[in-house]
Amino acid sequence: MSGHVGVAIVGASGYAARELIQILLKHPGVRITVATSRQDEAPRVDALHPSLTRRIDLACEPFDADQIAERASFAFLALPHTASLAVVPALRKRNVRVIDLSADYRLSDPQVYADWYGHQHTDLPGLKQAVYGLPELFRDQIPPAQLIANPGCYTSTSILALAPLIAEDLIERTGIIIDAKSGVSGAGRSPKLNFHFPECNESFSAYNVGWHRHTPEIDQVLTTMTSGRGEAVEVIFTPHLVPMDRGIFATIYARPKQAAVEHDLLELYRSFYARSPFIRIVSHLPATKDSALTNYCDITLRVVRGQIVILACLDNLIKGAAGVAVQNLNLMLGCPEETALL
Amino acid sequence: MSGHVGVAIVGASGYAARELIQILLKHPGVRITVATSRQDEAPRVDALHPSLTRRIDLACEPFDADQIAERASFAFLALPHTASLAVVPALRKRNVRVIDLSADYRLSDPQVYADWYGHQHTDLPGLKQAVYGLPELFRDQIPPAQLIANPGCYTSTSILALAPLIAEDLIERTGIIIDAKSGVSGAGRSPKLNFHFPECNESFSAYNVGWHRHTPEIDQVLTTMTSGRGEAVEVIFTPHLVPMDRGIFATIYARPKQAAVEHDLLELYRSFYARSPFIRIVSHLPATKDSALTNYCDITLRVVRGQIVILACLDNLIKGAAGVAVQNLNLMLGCPEETALL
Amino acid sequence: MSGHVGVAIVGASGYAARELIQILLKHPGVRITVATSRQDEAPRVDALHPSLTRRIDLACEPFDADQIAERASFAFLALPHTASLAVVPALRKRNVRVIDLSADYRLSDPQVYADWYGHQHTDLPGLKQAVYGLPELFRDQIPPAQLIANPGCYTSTSILALAPLIAEDLIERTGIIIDAKSGVSGAGRSPKLNFHFPECNESFSAYNVGWHRHTPEIDQVLTTMTSGRGEAVEVIFTPHLVPMDRGIFATIYARPKQAAVEHDLLELYRSFYARSPFIRIVSHLPATKDSALTNYCDITLRVVRGQIVILACLDNLIKGAAGVAVQNLNLMLGCPEETALL
Amino acid sequence: MSGHVGVAIVGASGYAARELIQILLKHPGVRITVATSRQDEAPRVDALHPSLTRRIDLACEPFDADQIAERASFAFLALPHTASLAVVPALRKRNVRVIDLSADYRLSDPQVYADWYGHQHTDLPGLKQAVYGLPELFRDQIPPAQLIANPGCYTSTSILALAPLIAEDLIERTGIIIDAKSGVSGAGRSPKLNFHFPECNESFSAYNVGWHRHTPEIDQVLTTMTSGRGEAVEVIFTPHLVPMDRGIFATIYARPKQAAVEHDLLELYRSFYARSPFIRIVSHLPATKDSALTNYCDITLRVVRGQIVILACLDNLIKGAAGVAVQNLNLMLGCPEETALL
Repeated sequence: MSGHVGVAIVGASGYAARELIQILLKHPGVRITVATSRQDEAPRVDALHPSLTRRIDLACEPFDADQIAERASFAFLALPHTASLAVVPALRKRNVRVIDLSADYRLSDPQVYADWYGHQHTDLPGLKQAVYGLPELFRDQIPPAQLIANPGCYTSTSILALAPLIAEDLIERTGIIIDAKSGVSGAGRSPKLNFHFPECNESFSAYNVGWHRHTPEIDQVLTTMTSGRGEAVEVIFTPHLVPMDRGIFATIYARPKQAAVEHDLLELYRSFYARSPFIRIVSHLPATKDSALTNYCDITLRVVRGQIVILACLDNLIKGAAGVAVQNLNLMLGCPEETALL
Repeated sequence: MSGHVGVAIVGASGYAARELIQILLKHPGVRITVATSRQDEAPRVDALHPSLTRRIDLACEPFDADQIAERASFAFLALPHTASLAVVPALRKRNVRVIDLSADYRLSDPQVYADWYGHQHTDLPGLKQAVYGLPELFRDQIPPAQLIANPGCYTSTSILALAPLIAEDLIERTGIIIDAKSGVSGAGRSPKLNFHFPECNESFSAYNVGWHRHTPEIDQVLTTMTSGRGEAVEVIFTPHLVPMDRGIFATIYARPKQAAVEHDLLELYRSFYARSPFIRIVSHLPATKDSALTNYCDITLRVVRGQIVILACLDNLIKGAAGVAVQNLNLMLGCPEETALL
Repeated sequence: MSGHVGVAIVGASGYAARELIQILLKHPGVRITVATSRQDEAPRVDALHPSLTRRIDLACEPFDADQIAERASFAFLALPHTASLAVVPALRKRNVRVIDLSADYRLSDPQVYADWYGHQHTDLPGLKQAVYGLPELFRDQIPPAQLIANPGCYTSTSILALAPLIAEDLIERTGIIIDAKSGVSGAGRSPKLNFHFPECNESFSAYNVGWHRHTPEIDQVLTTMTSGRGEAVEVIFTPHLVPMDRGIFATIYARPKQAAVEHDLLELYRSFYARSPFIRIVSHLPATKDSALTNYCDITLRVVRGQIVILACLDNLIKGAAGVAVQNLNLMLGCPEETALL
Repeated sequence: MSGHVGVAIVGASGYAARELIQILLKHPGVRITVATSRQDEAPRVDALHPSLTRRIDLACEPFDADQIAERASFAFLALPHTASLAVVPALRKRNVRVIDLSADYRLSDPQVYADWYGHQHTDLPGLKQAVYGLPELFRDQIPPAQLIANPGCYTSTSILALAPLIAEDLIERTGIIIDAKSGVSGAGRSPKLNFHFPECNESFSAYNVGWHRHTPEIDQVLTTMTSGRGEAVEVIFTPHLVPMDRGIFATIYARPKQAAVEHDLLELYRSFYARSPFIRIVSHLPATKDSALTNYCDITLRVVRGQIVILACLDNLIKGAAGVAVQNLNLMLGCPEETALL
């Protein structure tokens, strides 16, 4: 066991936690030493996730920052939004490095957080420290980070698809349309009527039109890419629910400032992501199934009647959550970025 | 409105109720005059079921036996098990004829009911009066009935598939194996983890192996077919969950008393169901999709290494619930059996 | 049989034909007298479509215009594109009124047809006669029509969703974005790798980005709504494949000429479609499942960051094909528009 | 590259081949050096399987035994049945060790092969040499094997579920009922109407009732377990198609020779499979989703009304095909059995 870094999974019962565990079990440098759950009966991890039977011999325990600090150097938080706000300061005080999969540390402006999430941010020092964990854009800031705000799934897809165009200032910054589609696992594991099988199976619908919380996150990160020159990015974001387990697909419509040439733009994308092992710029039209169960984000684009149509997809639980979290961990540990992810 | 029979839907929020409403809206002799719901806010029926928008202009009300008796001659109960026990006596006292879609009046022996459903039957007079509403077997008892126990979905499939063999005393009565598979709508509309989309989608599993409550119902009705001669029927019933909305499929294995001949058995089935417009004895292997959204039950059989393999399927919400309920209503009204069902 | 109008189904083996037959079997004024198929063995209709077992007693025959003219006053053509071009003149010469579900008579400019479908139009007189069969927009032209070009499924959804805004000249006519999603039955019944279950199940993808053939059809019909004033409509149309059987969902983004007010626009839509029994302008966000298996088109809209987002859905095989075909038939026969469609 | 064993994938375009490649890419001791395809244009492997983009840089080539012998010590054959008969002798002559995923070498009696597969076996010496590659039962015969007949997916599920009961002579050997259900990927990757999405989606059906070719394979291997004492095993096998990608579920009904005790039987199973890392004897009712994408076979059992009901499931493409093939490779290489499989 020497040589292994201890990691804790805080909030082990959901889908992102399960994926995280599956990935970490393949990681040669890491050992899962703690799993927490709010459930009273301290279930075994494989009772929560029968697919992990024989893979992990660990019982959940209630959250206890001292316990975690003793046994783990890193903690992944797979908690509902707002729950992380209580847990992060306790862990940071004990020098546990944190990768937070919730939205609590993603929006750098606490007022924007309050506006979109409906309550005040209660850890402003933490918020200031947090590094946005999208390795493809912020690879250099991640290795020393103590607190990572792991990006949202819709957000990663949208940002990765638009970043080259924004960085090169090739498109209008407002009125960008992101028509996004997600598999149902993106809604989490709590049963609700909307996600009851006979309701969402064989159905397609939009939800939260105009007020989905990933909107300000996309705006903020893409605006960062403009280096503060000119107006802020403002997207029109429409999420939809697809009757499938996994996958996010974004169809994005952007108006170029100058006439766009498909081939040149594809070359730009290839060059922009040359250092990024998990971005695949493809020529064919990608399908979510091709990136499902992988840490890849597949991107292509077309020019249609003068507008740029970018098509991007990834696995919401892996590249959109647990996979990128481990990618961040790898950077923090100094491991190869792909470790446990291929 | 003269000439229309008023009917009440007691418990309007579930899937069987929705199907019932859809069918009754096509019925030329019937008008839905009451819909009840336990929800406080008295929702409109089309708020519960958006697919019915523009089809029905009716608000739910709380259950009130007097109100129902005033406006309806028939009441369909689409309530959870045990809830019917309170409602039926109140309606019967007011001479409302009742078609109960719950299991509360299906088992003629109250002790069997107590054993399998875990509480005492509290309406023994009602239980005595109740007629088992499977028209193909009890067509003559239904027209005058005041209280119909509408059969279960697994039960109808299994009984219809086995009745000719039992009636003709052609198979061993114990050890009959019913391997049954159901779409998820059979589990009702209440969200639960088991039926959360990402749990049951892309998965197949068995449940309640050895103790599903349709077992004694199948035993009882098939034993009725033996006319009291010889031993009782005892089936081994295994239900499974299929990742689809609708449909029940039963694969049944029976040991013949004498060497079985496929062609003769198919002829027996055709003759047995000659008067039954909704039983299709087919030569090909049926698929649930062919009977989905219809009131048909499709049946075929094969002889395999000496055993009889019967394959039967139907739509659990229609022929397995709402459709057969209207079929019963038609018989009670003296209408053609197919009214509103084709 | 007296009093029934004879109708022929030319091309009986596909999904639209099956839906057509199911609907027509409920029509009190119509009898299906001919079904054709290119298959040599003259299969029975219920052998092609096992769900129709016991519903229709008819064998397919090869196409023969004289036979059809003798037994039918109307012919529905459910043929692949270009096949209708050969059949329509033969039927018209014999005074059979035709409802063509293919695309062959939809584009009024034969050059546009040639450009998008890759071959010359060979029946210019027919093309001139053809009436575009979207009753909500062209209700008055349909009753006397001899040849109906039944609209495409994506087209109907898109046009119905945009017509009020174009008719009132409220939006920019170019750069309208139609992000459309279809269930797999929209691709027809011929097996291909793309529609092989393990390929498209659990996957979401775009296809034909920038060159789907419904694009010019949408442009043309919406341009008609401008009464020739100002520039032509030009949409950016992106179709996607959803892992479900039925349903089309369009998310449409339009830039208003003046600041848009959600409530006022919804009122405009309600008033625009006041005479149209199958358009439901709803306040909630619609799901394809709510209009599946019906002839309804559900529409709502939202104003998001200044743009108008219109959300519309319908069943591609019914309101998008067979249902609207019967709606057209009803208008041609002088029956109530809803006959056989509720 | 030194230290790597070269392996060839003969027939690279199907689903089992894709899984095989994915697994082998994780194998530290192996390198894929050849992939063959009958397609003329010599496609790249990632053009056949877009999910493998960036994972493998290899173009398919036509089958050439000399080429394979030069670059590979092992060949996996993922060919249709009968195609292996031509390829195996050529490879064996050149001392390439072969793991054949087809059925061609599974039935030891060539007459049984001829009866069920409809043509003569043309490689009797190969047939004699072949070892049946089910490691849980034949672990000791596999390491030295030159030719492995990799078992069928239904077969593995059924045999693993029944082996302890047959080995201990606890059940009647005839009349064993195997009611099996498979996801659609089990049918391969060639488009056919039965597997066209809108046909099999939302549908459940049985197929090949009484004559599925896995029947004699199950009979043969289970009879082997009887050590030649007493009558041969004869099962009644019914396969069904489930609308999902992956997974096989078998519900098996066996009549015990003496009264069966659930707990004791579970203990027997645990002990029987104590050395088998990929068999999970569980107490809960397993779901295919829990073993999907893994090399595990999950098994439990219940005693119901005196009969033993065994429930077993596995991933048809992994434990039922590619995974067990690599498990066999590991045994042949002397690696740990789990290599690349966790």
